[in-house]
Amino acid sequence: MTLDLSELRAIARDLDVDAVALVPGANFARAIGGDFHTSERPLVVVVPPRGEPAAVVPNLELGSFAQLGFPGAVFDWRDQDGYDAAFAALARALPLRRVAVEGQVMRVFVHHALRAAFPQIEVVDAEREISALRLCKTEAEIAAMEQAIRISEAALGEVLDDLRVGMTEREVERRLLAALFAHGAEGLAFGPIVAAGANAALPHAHARDVAIEAGDALLFDFGAAWGGLNADVTRTVFVGHASDEDAAVYATVLAANEAAIAATRPGATAHEIDDAATSVLEASPFAEFILTKTGHGLGREVHEAPWIMRGNRQVLAPGMVYTDEPGLYLPGRLGVRIEDDVLVTQTGARVLTAFPKTLTVVG
Amino acid sequence: MTLDLSELRAIARDLDVDAVALVPGANFARAIGGDFHTSERPLVVVVPPRGEPAAVVPNLELGSFAQLGFPGAVFDWRDQDGYDAAFAALARALPLRRVAVEGQVMRVFVHHALRAAFPQIEVVDAEREISALRLCKTEAEIAAMEQAIRISEAALGEVLDDLRVGMTEREVERRLLAALFAHGAEGLAFGPIVAAGANAALPHAHARDVAIEAGDALLFDFGAAWGGLNADVTRTVFVGHASDEDAAVYATVLAANEAAIAATRPGATAHEIDDAATSVLEASPFAEFILTKTGHGLGREVHEAPWIMRGNRQVLAPGMVYTDEPGLYLPGRLGVRIEDDVLVTQTGARVLTAFPKTLTVVG
Repeated sequence: MTLDLSELRAIARDLDVDAVALVPGANFARAIGGDFHTSERPLVVVVPPRGEPAAVVPNLELGSFAQLGFPGAVFDWRDQDGYDAAFAALARALPLRRVAVEGQVMRVFVHHALRAAFPQIEVVDAEREISALRLCKTEAEIAAMEQAIRISEAALGEVLDDLRVGMTEREVERRLLAALFAHGAEGLAFGPIVAAGANAALPHAHARDVAIEAGDALLFDFGAAWGGLNADVTRTVFVGHASDEDAAVYATVLAANEAAIAATRPGATAHEIDDAATSVLEASPFAEFILTKTGHGLGREVHEAPWIMRGNRQVLAPGMVYTDEPGLYLPGRLGVRIEDDVLVTQTGARVLTAFPKTLTVVG
Repeated sequence: MTLDLSELRAIARDLDVDAVALVPGANFARAIGGDFHTSERPLVVVVPPRGEPAAVVPNLELGSFAQLGFPGAVFDWRDQDGYDAAFAALARALPLRRVAVEGQVMRVFVHHALRAAFPQIEVVDAEREISALRLCKTEAEIAAMEQAIRISEAALGEVLDDLRVGMTEREVERRLLAALFAHGAEGLAFGPIVAAGANAALPHAHARDVAIEAGDALLFDFGAAWGGLNADVTRTVFVGHASDEDAAVYATVLAANEAAIAATRPGATAHEIDDAATSVLEASPFAEFILTKTGHGLGREVHEAPWIMRGNRQVLAPGMVYTDEPGLYLPGRLGVRIEDDVLVTQTGARVLTAFPKTLTVVG
């Protein structure tokens, strides 16, 4: 089976570059296949608008690479020899003046290797155009994401059932991790956030050896990975009881979360989704505690396009999946965030996450 | 508490650059602190040889960043506005002509942002010099790595106890993952490799829905992460029985693994360690099936210096930790790799991994 490179060739043509150069990552997994680790060993695939592509491949990955049906020349290199000669051979095979790369994925050492082999080269950051390949999810990708979400939600339910005042954040995090893998996670979308009370007011908090107290809001932001796709779920619960003002913060965030879902349909812009959610927060007594945009695309990467923020005129289309995660962050007091994974359908939205969002008191 | 930047300042001085620019990753975690995710939002710390440092920080990370005691100017930016103005402010505060970066960590989009703000800038790849900060592990780092290894070995033991002919590679992988987190893993060093028979002949194989057969060699390469440090362990066992020739392959790899340990002492070079192991493989009837160097450093990153390969004259010193993982890969038939994590001590080596290496038949 020969690999179909037509999408990458079309990108190279549209960008008017001599080639698209991909390194292992989400775009590579979707367009080329395999499951190569990001590593200290450069592996680059170079696809011109037409004609034979080429690749630089570490010798120890040749076996895995051969399974991909790549229809071009492969220049391999061994650890003992270094990779300069392989890049030089690439330069002789495929003289490049202008190459499009994924700016969020390719690292500086590969950039330097290209520049050393092609002294005249202009490197164009085409992250947006290349990653657009992954904007609309296939049915198989959506099914894998749903599986990742089911695993995540089953794990959260189990942890909440056993939660007690006095457990530390780290203890709860350990229980969440064990539950995720007991339920079949193949990996983590990212290191989970388990944060209580004032700690949850940091959007990217880390679990501490600090006991959870009655009255704390407790925020979980986490996700399983499954089949190469990711879940990304946030729920905030209250431990023991919730004060009236904390409940008002919660109700505001929930209304914002639901406003984004209500605004979702093909043809809406990312701006409109963020605006729908953020306007709810701004109209509340808690407007000063807004810290983030509403969300981001979700798929083979946890953070990807479409970026759900004001000013982004990207038009939503069926098959896109984004996180709807408005939050309010009251420094020194609490953070509330509610995050769903939302699929854009032919007619509107299908919320892939199903975990209840009504204010929940546990322990 | 003010952050001590003297090590980074010394690197900038030694390299004769205007500053070292760090992005989140292992060096950042060791030298600056915090635990920032690699993300689509640039976060850069710029440390000159003397005088005030500066940083570009996404607005939503300001709270976490403030906890670090960073003694310089912070230019923050919000998603809605983008980061160009923050980099421009950095350029006004700290005119840079020549900056040293981590080529294996910084991505092209940050490189481009620096170049846009500092049109004359020369970006030097100082991966080696900056990462040298982490070469010799602290006692706390070694203790965390030992904890990660204990967790990993406990999980492997449990999986081997329950292993049966007919389980698929993926089923065994699922059991390994669940066991790792049940034993207290905080994360994965990397996606585990569980590969039987011919699949194990690919050094970076992935688990398949294929049943394990009697007579297969079964290779596990995996590790828990704990306290920011990683384990990296490989064991190869035989399922049901081992043929005489497979046992000979195994004995050869084990002899190579032990030769590297025997050669380890402060003052030895990385070349000598690799040479000790690889010479054993080369002198065997299986010399044609060598595919990789002997190993790599291990710490906050799974692959880091010192690279254990011929030609690398880096001198080992107490506190360095490396993986000793010779292997033989017989295409279409089997792969055998045995990997220990080895600490260089004042007098020789302490092998941190303790899982038995004698030829083991399971199931």
